[in-house]
Amino acid sequence: MGKTLKSIKMIEQPGEHSYVFSKYIDPIVRVSPGEVVEILTKDAFENQITSGDDVPSKILGDYLNPQTGPIYIEGAEPGDTLVAHIIDIEPTRDWAVSVMKENFGGLTATDLTRTLHEPLPEKVWIYKLANGMLTNNERLNFPWRPFLGTIGTAPEIEAVSALTPFDHGGNMDVPDTKPGNKVYLPVRTEGAYFYTGDCHAGQGDGELCGVALEIAAKVKMKFELIKGKEIKWPRIESDTEYMVVGSARPMEDAARIAYAELIDWMVELGWEKFEAYQALTQIGNLYVGNMVDTYYSLVAKIQKKYVHPGE
Amino acid sequence: MGKTLKSIKMIEQPGEHSYVFSKYIDPIVRVSPGEVVEILTKDAFENQITSGDDVPSKILGDYLNPQTGPIYIEGAEPGDTLVAHIIDIEPTRDWAVSVMKENFGGLTATDLTRTLHEPLPEKVWIYKLANGMLTNNERLNFPWRPFLGTIGTAPEIEAVSALTPFDHGGNMDVPDTKPGNKVYLPVRTEGAYFYTGDCHAGQGDGELCGVALEIAAKVKMKFELIKGKEIKWPRIESDTEYMVVGSARPMEDAARIAYAELIDWMVELGWEKFEAYQALTQIGNLYVGNMVDTYYSLVAKIQKKYVHPGE
Amino acid sequence: MGKTLKSIKMIEQPGEHSYVFSKYIDPIVRVSPGEVVEILTKDAFENQITSGDDVPSKILGDYLNPQTGPIYIEGAEPGDTLVAHIIDIEPTRDWAVSVMKENFGGLTATDLTRTLHEPLPEKVWIYKLANGMLTNNERLNFPWRPFLGTIGTAPEIEAVSALTPFDHGGNMDVPDTKPGNKVYLPVRTEGAYFYTGDCHAGQGDGELCGVALEIAAKVKMKFELIKGKEIKWPRIESDTEYMVVGSARPMEDAARIAYAELIDWMVELGWEKFEAYQALTQIGNLYVGNMVDTYYSLVAKIQKKYVHPGE
Amino acid sequence: MGKTLKSIKMIEQPGEHSYVFSKYIDPIVRVSPGEVVEILTKDAFENQITSGDDVPSKILGDYLNPQTGPIYIEGAEPGDTLVAHIIDIEPTRDWAVSVMKENFGGLTATDLTRTLHEPLPEKVWIYKLANGMLTNNERLNFPWRPFLGTIGTAPEIEAVSALTPFDHGGNMDVPDTKPGNKVYLPVRTEGAYFYTGDCHAGQGDGELCGVALEIAAKVKMKFELIKGKEIKWPRIESDTEYMVVGSARPMEDAARIAYAELIDWMVELGWEKFEAYQALTQIGNLYVGNMVDTYYSLVAKIQKKYVHPGE
Repeated sequence: MGKTLKSIKMIEQPGEHSYVFSKYIDPIVRVSPGEVVEILTKDAFENQITSGDDVPSKILGDYLNPQTGPIYIEGAEPGDTLVAHIIDIEPTRDWAVSVMKENFGGLTATDLTRTLHEPLPEKVWIYKLANGMLTNNERLNFPWRPFLGTIGTAPEIEAVSALTPFDHGGNMDVPDTKPGNKVYLPVRTEGAYFYTGDCHAGQGDGELCGVALEIAAKVKMKFELIKGKEIKWPRIESDTEYMVVGSARPMEDAARIAYAELIDWMVELGWEKFEAYQALTQIGNLYVGNMVDTYYSLVAKIQKKYVHPGE
Repeated sequence: MGKTLKSIKMIEQPGEHSYVFSKYIDPIVRVSPGEVVEILTKDAFENQITSGDDVPSKILGDYLNPQTGPIYIEGAEPGDTLVAHIIDIEPTRDWAVSVMKENFGGLTATDLTRTLHEPLPEKVWIYKLANGMLTNNERLNFPWRPFLGTIGTAPEIEAVSALTPFDHGGNMDVPDTKPGNKVYLPVRTEGAYFYTGDCHAGQGDGELCGVALEIAAKVKMKFELIKGKEIKWPRIESDTEYMVVGSARPMEDAARIAYAELIDWMVELGWEKFEAYQALTQIGNLYVGNMVDTYYSLVAKIQKKYVHPGE
Repeated sequence: MGKTLKSIKMIEQPGEHSYVFSKYIDPIVRVSPGEVVEILTKDAFENQITSGDDVPSKILGDYLNPQTGPIYIEGAEPGDTLVAHIIDIEPTRDWAVSVMKENFGGLTATDLTRTLHEPLPEKVWIYKLANGMLTNNERLNFPWRPFLGTIGTAPEIEAVSALTPFDHGGNMDVPDTKPGNKVYLPVRTEGAYFYTGDCHAGQGDGELCGVALEIAAKVKMKFELIKGKEIKWPRIESDTEYMVVGSARPMEDAARIAYAELIDWMVELGWEKFEAYQALTQIGNLYVGNMVDTYYSLVAKIQKKYVHPGE
Repeated sequence: MGKTLKSIKMIEQPGEHSYVFSKYIDPIVRVSPGEVVEILTKDAFENQITSGDDVPSKILGDYLNPQTGPIYIEGAEPGDTLVAHIIDIEPTRDWAVSVMKENFGGLTATDLTRTLHEPLPEKVWIYKLANGMLTNNERLNFPWRPFLGTIGTAPEIEAVSALTPFDHGGNMDVPDTKPGNKVYLPVRTEGAYFYTGDCHAGQGDGELCGVALEIAAKVKMKFELIKGKEIKWPRIESDTEYMVVGSARPMEDAARIAYAELIDWMVELGWEKFEAYQALTQIGNLYVGNMVDTYYSLVAKIQKKYVHPGE
């Protein structure tokens, strides 16, 4: 999982963690495009839940999902696109944690989908990480598939909770923000104010109970700026795919955004709008990243070979 | 794509096509469990659109998506489960068709999501099928990946439009109802009244513009009855995966149904409920089958190796 | 509450109640336009729950909401509009009932909004009807405001559950289908196949727990046919208001349908489309009829004086 | 509409308008509980659209809905409730404006409900205010029914766009935030950071095209603090009714929040939870405030006489 060279800048999460994506907070560091950095991230519970006997509601404070940032990107101006190359994710401890939290999750009443039911029970699962597997018991035993649950930039005038995914990125919880991939984010304020955190050692589609395999990590990353190129929603590029993440409620609106923006991307690459619509109808993919956060995040994708058929 | 043996019963779509899943319609044939049959299906437009110059709104009648059925399954009684083994799908013509239809599709106003916009233009794409590829032009050129867009049984007392997916199956438009897989359907009326049709030569997730690669086909299939076993929603089993299809609006309700029913299935297989919830959080998959029909259909799945870890 | 003249046709709910709106069922009676009839309706539980100690899940069968019908309207043909004048609703017993039913209601998990919670408790409230008030105890004490929870015609080819509201009317549960008002319904099959039932002695907006003040009743009604006039969704007219009922999920789609159809109605009455849009923005009303049925029903309305300002 | 006494503090919207509800912005004034103030508000377009020939997309900047605030309330601390008594609203000009804006409104594609349609046309309607009526032409002629479209406090750590309604209040666009009524708002930051603006000369339920009768105004108001009383969502009290505003998407979640919180309020007033659920089922009201903003706002209400039956 990579060796840290001396020359790489190491960015720690400061004592005062950030729970919002915001230009109102002073940057913790300034980074230049092209520079490789390593970013240390705490887990979504600030590393506070450590045992299967812990009771989340008694331990956790009002805020969750602490981010490392804001990171000021030199030269970034509103209207640019910031490209975050995720080079590597290395765990900084040998265990991950998932929990059932009151009024949070995909198959429970929540603060938004209110009911009169008693809350579901709270539960904690600790997973040991060894040999590329995360193991709680013989049934709960899953491979290491790390990605960044939360990654984004500051909105233009708002300060958005680190629990929220939206058009600035944020808490999208989509497994494709992973090593090897590039994440395109809108720059909406001078310096971009980049944040990341909430590393997941693995997660299924939807993040069903609301909490993935949460882990502390060191993320190796490099930034690139595309000057004067504006995007409306976060995009992801892998070696073989173009992807857009849409985040909204109800879930069909997230699906509409993701596919409509992917059409826009294809149009930028030379496609006619309705032909792109037709192509995605027959060969696009659409999966649920999260069905638990304040907005649901869906990923629409198409393989590059269908976008550039002659090449 | 298989040779048809003389002994196989061939079931044609009758002159009077069925546009509802219903016990109120006389069965066109009776089939015994274990018997292999071949079912001929027309395309979703009754084979009426044949040229890129056709204007769908001038050609199509009030009803779409004609089904072959009802097929009476000998011995099927309410409370049983019918298992449809999809053995093979063979095209009966060498072309497929997709269209943009007025007020229908994933990125348009519809009869349910009403707006004041003028309708999108109508368009027809004809694809040639040859060498395992469906080709309209050099950009619209996709592999043969056939499946049954519509498959289901009759509801208990309702007659449900063939355009609707719900807990009886129906027009789910999920690519996993494909050769090699088993589709579990609830039996809610004596004889089950099985229907299928709407063969797709291929489709992306969501069936974005509303119309996949529609084709006429011959489907080889075998039925199995599980007596006294009741299921609430359609299930699919492949060699490697367990899947449930949830169909509802808004889309998050389809997601909830699909995962909740998959938990129920895991509980039947020996899992504790909250442990199954946890497992699906970390290793489940959830994709959008259709985002265009009267209900949206989502498929939740888990690999069998995670359900039966010791085996 | 009116005296029954000898000459009025009395229509009883037959022994074999109807739980679907469907052309596949034989009419129980034929009625001519202009003829005044009285229709007897059972309550939504078939009059089976009679005591506060009853446990609904032990008493109720698979079907609920029995309807009186189909009533064949002489001369009705597809493409006509049927106008049902609700003249009077008279209770046929001196009590009403409401219950909390498992997995049904506005603030509970349901079969569509699935969660892992234990069901809410079952409860029964019996209300005595006297002096124009329905009284369970000193706090639960509400005025007599009767209306028809369910009223509609048969769909063209489907048989729709009596629990479902949609474009044919059905189980809309909107308090404006009340004495003095006219309900416009689409005729989609020869004879219209009219049904009504589910009389409510009163109900708040949304029918929050899922069950209003359910009562058995005698409904005095007269039918009118508007030949060759097609409507897409049910309309209601009072002395002072025009109203449209939209039924869909998510709830915003029901709102869109109701207002879009009300614009269509205003256009029929001479308005320009965007001016009607503007007028409804400033003076329209929109309330929630039900937030508990298979589709949510919303009522958009405008006062006639704003539609016909010079008159 | 009231005479301004010399002793009343007049609060003007500063040159640098506020487009977010936020503790990160310096208060423009400090006000004590009990003090009567007059607040000047600009219209939602900053008073920039003045003629029926204006083209909104050419005039308007990136931000809309300027607020007067933050107003620091002396003594307010997190966990308190701020009560804003709306005493009077007086227009400061004799005309109001409504527009159709691109990709905004209830019957159009939007940035969240994305489609491939061309935008609806832009339109501007100017209404003259005279004799208690707002008049554009003989059809568009509506009574003066003023209320505050936007009213709220700052969130705990976020800075929320002035276009957004949520649990802090904000851009709810519900006609019950009107003179004579009290609006209860949560205090989540020291000083409460109160904002208001977006005065509407009148509006129908749903604010259908997205823009009410927008007007500049002077609002007379008095604040009250309830120390140590925490509320989760905004409440409104009139002489005769208790109301809660829920804001969410999909719309059914807003409905659930509004009624669930109204049950909580009734429980605070001595009711048993399920009995309150039953009472609201039979006598509650639920209307759509807005169906156009980033969240939809619904108002659930009950008449006080049903909450306090013996009194």
